[in-house]
Amino acid sequence: AHNEFFPGISKIQYKPDAAPTDVMCFRYYNPEEVVLGHSMKDWLRFSVCFWHTFRGVGSDPFGFGTIERPWDDGSETMENAKQRMRAAFEFFTKLGVEYWTFHDRDIAPEGKTLAETNRNLDEMTDLAKQLMDETGVKLLWNTCNLFSNPRYMNGALTNPDAHVVAYAAAQVKKGLEIGKKLGAENFAYKEKIGFKGQFLIEPKPKEPTRHQYDYDAMTVIGFLKHFGLADDFKLNIEPNHTTLAGHQYHHDIMMASAFGMLGSVDSNTGSPDLGWDTDQFPMDISYATQAMKVIIDQNGLQPGGLNFDAKVRRESTDVQDMFIAHIGAMDTFARGLRNAAKIVEDGYMQKMLDDRYATFTSGLGLKIVKGQASLEECEKFISQAGNPKKTSGQQEKYEAVLNRYL
Amino acid sequence: AHNEFFPGISKIQYKPDAAPTDVMCFRYYNPEEVVLGHSMKDWLRFSVCFWHTFRGVGSDPFGFGTIERPWDDGSETMENAKQRMRAAFEFFTKLGVEYWTFHDRDIAPEGKTLAETNRNLDEMTDLAKQLMDETGVKLLWNTCNLFSNPRYMNGALTNPDAHVVAYAAAQVKKGLEIGKKLGAENFAYKEKIGFKGQFLIEPKPKEPTRHQYDYDAMTVIGFLKHFGLADDFKLNIEPNHTTLAGHQYHHDIMMASAFGMLGSVDSNTGSPDLGWDTDQFPMDISYATQAMKVIIDQNGLQPGGLNFDAKVRRESTDVQDMFIAHIGAMDTFARGLRNAAKIVEDGYMQKMLDDRYATFTSGLGLKIVKGQASLEECEKFISQAGNPKKTSGQQEKYEAVLNRYL
Amino acid sequence: AHNEFFPGISKIQYKPDAAPTDVMCFRYYNPEEVVLGHSMKDWLRFSVCFWHTFRGVGSDPFGFGTIERPWDDGSETMENAKQRMRAAFEFFTKLGVEYWTFHDRDIAPEGKTLAETNRNLDEMTDLAKQLMDETGVKLLWNTCNLFSNPRYMNGALTNPDAHVVAYAAAQVKKGLEIGKKLGAENFAYKEKIGFKGQFLIEPKPKEPTRHQYDYDAMTVIGFLKHFGLADDFKLNIEPNHTTLAGHQYHHDIMMASAFGMLGSVDSNTGSPDLGWDTDQFPMDISYATQAMKVIIDQNGLQPGGLNFDAKVRRESTDVQDMFIAHIGAMDTFARGLRNAAKIVEDGYMQKMLDDRYATFTSGLGLKIVKGQASLEECEKFISQAGNPKKTSGQQEKYEAVLNRYL
Amino acid sequence: AHNEFFPGISKIQYKPDAAPTDVMCFRYYNPEEVVLGHSMKDWLRFSVCFWHTFRGVGSDPFGFGTIERPWDDGSETMENAKQRMRAAFEFFTKLGVEYWTFHDRDIAPEGKTLAETNRNLDEMTDLAKQLMDETGVKLLWNTCNLFSNPRYMNGALTNPDAHVVAYAAAQVKKGLEIGKKLGAENFAYKEKIGFKGQFLIEPKPKEPTRHQYDYDAMTVIGFLKHFGLADDFKLNIEPNHTTLAGHQYHHDIMMASAFGMLGSVDSNTGSPDLGWDTDQFPMDISYATQAMKVIIDQNGLQPGGLNFDAKVRRESTDVQDMFIAHIGAMDTFARGLRNAAKIVEDGYMQKMLDDRYATFTSGLGLKIVKGQASLEECEKFISQAGNPKKTSGQQEKYEAVLNRYL
Repeated sequence: AHNEFFPGISKIQYKPDAAPTDVMCFRYYNPEEVVLGHSMKDWLRFSVCFWHTFRGVGSDPFGFGTIERPWDDGSETMENAKQRMRAAFEFFTKLGVEYWTFHDRDIAPEGKTLAETNRNLDEMTDLAKQLMDETGVKLLWNTCNLFSNPRYMNGALTNPDAHVVAYAAAQVKKGLEIGKKLGAENFAYKEKIGFKGQFLIEPKPKEPTRHQYDYDAMTVIGFLKHFGLADDFKLNIEPNHTTLAGHQYHHDIMMASAFGMLGSVDSNTGSPDLGWDTDQFPMDISYATQAMKVIIDQNGLQPGGLNFDAKVRRESTDVQDMFIAHIGAMDTFARGLRNAAKIVEDGYMQKMLDDRYATFTSGLGLKIVKGQASLEECEKFISQAGNPKKTSGQQEKYEAVLNRYL
Repeated sequence: AHNEFFPGISKIQYKPDAAPTDVMCFRYYNPEEVVLGHSMKDWLRFSVCFWHTFRGVGSDPFGFGTIERPWDDGSETMENAKQRMRAAFEFFTKLGVEYWTFHDRDIAPEGKTLAETNRNLDEMTDLAKQLMDETGVKLLWNTCNLFSNPRYMNGALTNPDAHVVAYAAAQVKKGLEIGKKLGAENFAYKEKIGFKGQFLIEPKPKEPTRHQYDYDAMTVIGFLKHFGLADDFKLNIEPNHTTLAGHQYHHDIMMASAFGMLGSVDSNTGSPDLGWDTDQFPMDISYATQAMKVIIDQNGLQPGGLNFDAKVRRESTDVQDMFIAHIGAMDTFARGLRNAAKIVEDGYMQKMLDDRYATFTSGLGLKIVKGQASLEECEKFISQAGNPKKTSGQQEKYEAVLNRYL
Repeated sequence: AHNEFFPGISKIQYKPDAAPTDVMCFRYYNPEEVVLGHSMKDWLRFSVCFWHTFRGVGSDPFGFGTIERPWDDGSETMENAKQRMRAAFEFFTKLGVEYWTFHDRDIAPEGKTLAETNRNLDEMTDLAKQLMDETGVKLLWNTCNLFSNPRYMNGALTNPDAHVVAYAAAQVKKGLEIGKKLGAENFAYKEKIGFKGQFLIEPKPKEPTRHQYDYDAMTVIGFLKHFGLADDFKLNIEPNHTTLAGHQYHHDIMMASAFGMLGSVDSNTGSPDLGWDTDQFPMDISYATQAMKVIIDQNGLQPGGLNFDAKVRRESTDVQDMFIAHIGAMDTFARGLRNAAKIVEDGYMQKMLDDRYATFTSGLGLKIVKGQASLEECEKFISQAGNPKKTSGQQEKYEAVLNRYL
Repeated sequence: AHNEFFPGISKIQYKPDAAPTDVMCFRYYNPEEVVLGHSMKDWLRFSVCFWHTFRGVGSDPFGFGTIERPWDDGSETMENAKQRMRAAFEFFTKLGVEYWTFHDRDIAPEGKTLAETNRNLDEMTDLAKQLMDETGVKLLWNTCNLFSNPRYMNGALTNPDAHVVAYAAAQVKKGLEIGKKLGAENFAYKEKIGFKGQFLIEPKPKEPTRHQYDYDAMTVIGFLKHFGLADDFKLNIEPNHTTLAGHQYHHDIMMASAFGMLGSVDSNTGSPDLGWDTDQFPMDISYATQAMKVIIDQNGLQPGGLNFDAKVRRESTDVQDMFIAHIGAMDTFARGLRNAAKIVEDGYMQKMLDDRYATFTSGLGLKIVKGQASLEECEKFISQAGNPKKTSGQQEKYEAVLNRYL
């Protein structure tokens, strides 16, 4: 019989009455519970990322790695890579998520040549396929790591050296091939070859280089529209990137959704007082509620999902911390879903919005919405109707009502 | 019989079952309810500020005033000032707060000379005293407006012109006299004359000038210690200032309390994505919980309190918005108090902390705490005990446990 | 003979040997001097804005107005408006700028009705036209103030009340008519009627509302492309907005120019440690050099220009400060122009860039640039050519070489 | 004969007429040139840091190390450590700096026990001493690395485990011993044992942990005063930390100097649009001028200096980039020194300041400065002298005059 990597930890259960410190169970996330006609797990589509959770070692610019795992000897051998992957699937299963995500270099060691690297990838994706079949865990998306290797220090597809660009393109080709092999529901980057998933592109400001072409949702949307690519892509929004770009937590989720381009969410958070991408587990109930409200309003994220692009702090060195962090975040989003569903069911807040925009449902307002009102017509309307009256914006009322749902 | 300024609005009631949109009542704040041995109102000591709530007009660098009140004709007459003050006391009473705060210039128009201005202040504080006696509303603190008048554009007590410094000093003298007259429990600024309240000093970064001597709590504490004033002052912390200084919401509350210098809180909030002092009503339940935890731990703020140094948005032009905003914030802090009290009662989180620091309760750890361990002794200890073992910091567990209380 | 508004100040002269404190002359700006085939004044196309320089009073959220001018009695009469405009044209002329800019409400008082307001505008633009003819000063652009009046507190063309949208539209119509009348070379906003200038749209983050549809250059470009308006508009970039959006000073100037959409620059600056739009006079020689480099590379800004959307600090209350601030900024940009021209003439930095991208001028690199290289071809290339070699990015060399030009 | 590590590079020369791209020489830094009575090298006291320049490999959270040096095989052997140190002293000498700085762990590999580690340190400091004697390069300061090793992930002297605190203390003891051995002029941290140098403490916000006890200069000064340590320490200011704390570049240099506590400067810079400690080489001439003005005003930094706590970008992989970066920064500070000296010699700006504060040199102003003016006296003065008059703050004049010196 094969090794158990998490001895003493069984499948995480839903216990609505758990004590505050009983953190190895869900108090809110109840996968099969039906909310607004769908199960919680179908609304939330949780995914664990391989990079932070199985490759992160807790190093930072000030310190060496702190995180050591019993199943990982730190070597770049295929044997170690396989152990790691088996541990990962046990984790996915015990935690109770249905999806995982990875970069090519997370799962297979690089060889001396691209050909050797690709053979390693073939072998590792064979194992992944087998484990996916055994456990029922599916691939939310895969992507290519076009940044860690020093060859990409000056950029990948934006590199000033055509040789590097060619290398990146060749790597993308292989990435698409393995995505297809594993039935990825999405691919976080570029270009097609018989691949049936949704292409995703993720905005990111300030890191790893000061200037990033894909600063935020609107920058990416503008870029895609400029190059005629808007029909080929949706956006994968990472809220920690959104806040680094100077926006509210859920701003890019809303903007991407408003333009019909919200594909998936890399569910994490930063600290508003820190200026870099801390990739913390999302624990804010109000933000989770507002994000889930947008997701409900667009009728879900499928084929995308909520992928935890989040890492335990470098001081959280226990194996148990991996579970606690994911459970805490899943409970947070389960609360967000419940809250948002109640907001939708009650309809009070929608009524407030409808009232706010009521003047656009008839008369000149409706003509304006339809793009049929000329400047002359507006001027004439004012000459007859005179000055508009003042209407309170009621921001505090919106805030207070939202709080009643938290 | 005298005018009613808020017709149709009666005293705000506690209704724990209120519907989400029934925002003209408290759902959580129940003044007489006992929490950890004291009534909620004694823990919270809510105060309304005169400046934002009765002098704010909603102008900003981009727009003229938007807020007009039926009791305020916009003039700088004594008659108008008196109307305004009567309206304020009706508001305090109907809202159900026990304290108010003001700057000298909020309540009385400036005259042509300081003497005339002071006579206006005498007349207005006579009325204030009478209304305080009638309603039982008390003065949490008063202070001097040493910034609005153009004479202070280059600073007040820091002005490069000694004439202006003298003017500011004279104004402070009068401010102390009226504070004494009205029985202020605190005074937000400098120097004594027979005045029995607590002196408060408030850190503030970046506004109104780029360099501020009192950037944050630690800057002010250092400044007071340098000039030998640390025994004469406590700090009035405004969380919106704290976040502008680059800290977490409750950072300065914690730091001031840790140094025994937390005197009062100007309870408001900003937006993490905006770089100025927006003075919004505080509506974040998690932050309110963490602030109240510190306040419980230091056994309350008295003689200070939670003063709402917050203003309705300039678009919130209805009289009702004044109530909704304060109620929403009071309910937020009532939830914070209940949550924090439960954390204290359960003791789980304290146990986590005690475990974390357990090695300092005996042996070398205890000697270190007492300042009795030499470098040599530490070196010798290591030569015998060897390398320390790794202990998880468990940040995600702390976050998840906290969330269970929200 | 008419009044002189700036007695004792004559036309500002170019004195290359002026002492450091002789700040009422140009030490670098020499309007007729030829640089790269054009006069300095044609490269720089300086403009003074009416709003800050003739309507600013120095009030802020903490203080009343500080700035009083001998020609302005503070009233909203037509007589006062005319005095103010005459003073402005004397200022433009003595300073030696060829352009001015204004919002409709800067130059004419609002009446009780839109019709009355428009009649005031007609009368004031008659005077403006006469003064422009007399002085030769031209209109760089005009625009509509769709924010100061309380009716716009919830937005103008984005207002939730159709009545307000109609009002804004009617105001825009009049704005276009007066722009046409005065021969504006640009118009900072929307829609045409027989108007021959360039339409400009200006990105702005965070103010006056937290969410702004036009956050930065790329957001606006995306927005225009989404709605099919990219051919109708160019961008007016304000660097203080750029930095508030989290970018480098000249980022939006570069991005807009790269997309062929840089129309004009609202030349000002903020403070990197302050989070709001301080609209300071631009005094950084390095930033001015980098901005002018982009402008030279696109062969100038015409019909746009460098408009000083900047205000003296509220403490700079002397009439002379108006001159000193503009002169300091004009000298800064004159230095920027001279430096950038030297960089262009020397060609060293261009050579560094050419070398950096040399691999794209032939072979596979050239095919990639032309969009003719497939993923398969790239993979095949790598299988033959192997790993790329490492090439230094040389950032410090670029910085050191740039410094040699400052 | 021993190896040459930088073949083809000879001692960097002063060439005032160097072409812009001739970056392997100084165009401004002329070590022996006398400025205000001292040589440039004595004012500037440049130092190279060992950690960035000889241990940095260019890894970041997104990428592996990029920087490989011919003298460094990447191993943790003593042999490799010695090669590295020999290369460093050749670099110091060819660059022409008189000082170096290091952390204990930069120069010697850690052993299995503290005793073994200390033996390694002894052997490496023997070599360092020999090389210092041979080259004349001196030790500006040394310090202990109390952060990289995972044992310090939860803090060093602030660790919740007393065992770790003891370890850190033992390490500090050894650090002081080697500082004494090498004749360090300063020590960047704590406590004395027969050590004659100046103790330095360096403010740092936000990194490596969110809460730092030593956020900025004033926080540290307050902390030192609270614990009665203000006489034992001076501050080592790193401007990149200052800007991360929300201040202007030279703010902490000024504040520390104003309190008589500026000991040394870790001369580097960040990017105002990036929220982390990028440790770039300082290249801003205006900031260098303002920093040098403060340093001249306090009559120099000795025994401190300008230590380049700066690293080449991870893309700057050539050996030559190490020289170019340091030369560019040294030239920047040489320009800063020349500019600041001219400002001091001219005396114009001092005159502007003296005029600004003139009212404090006699009468009531002088009494205020001496702390002899009572509130009553101020009130009486105002009753006689009336309102103060308005005086322009002239910020733009200060900026324009400063620009004339750049």
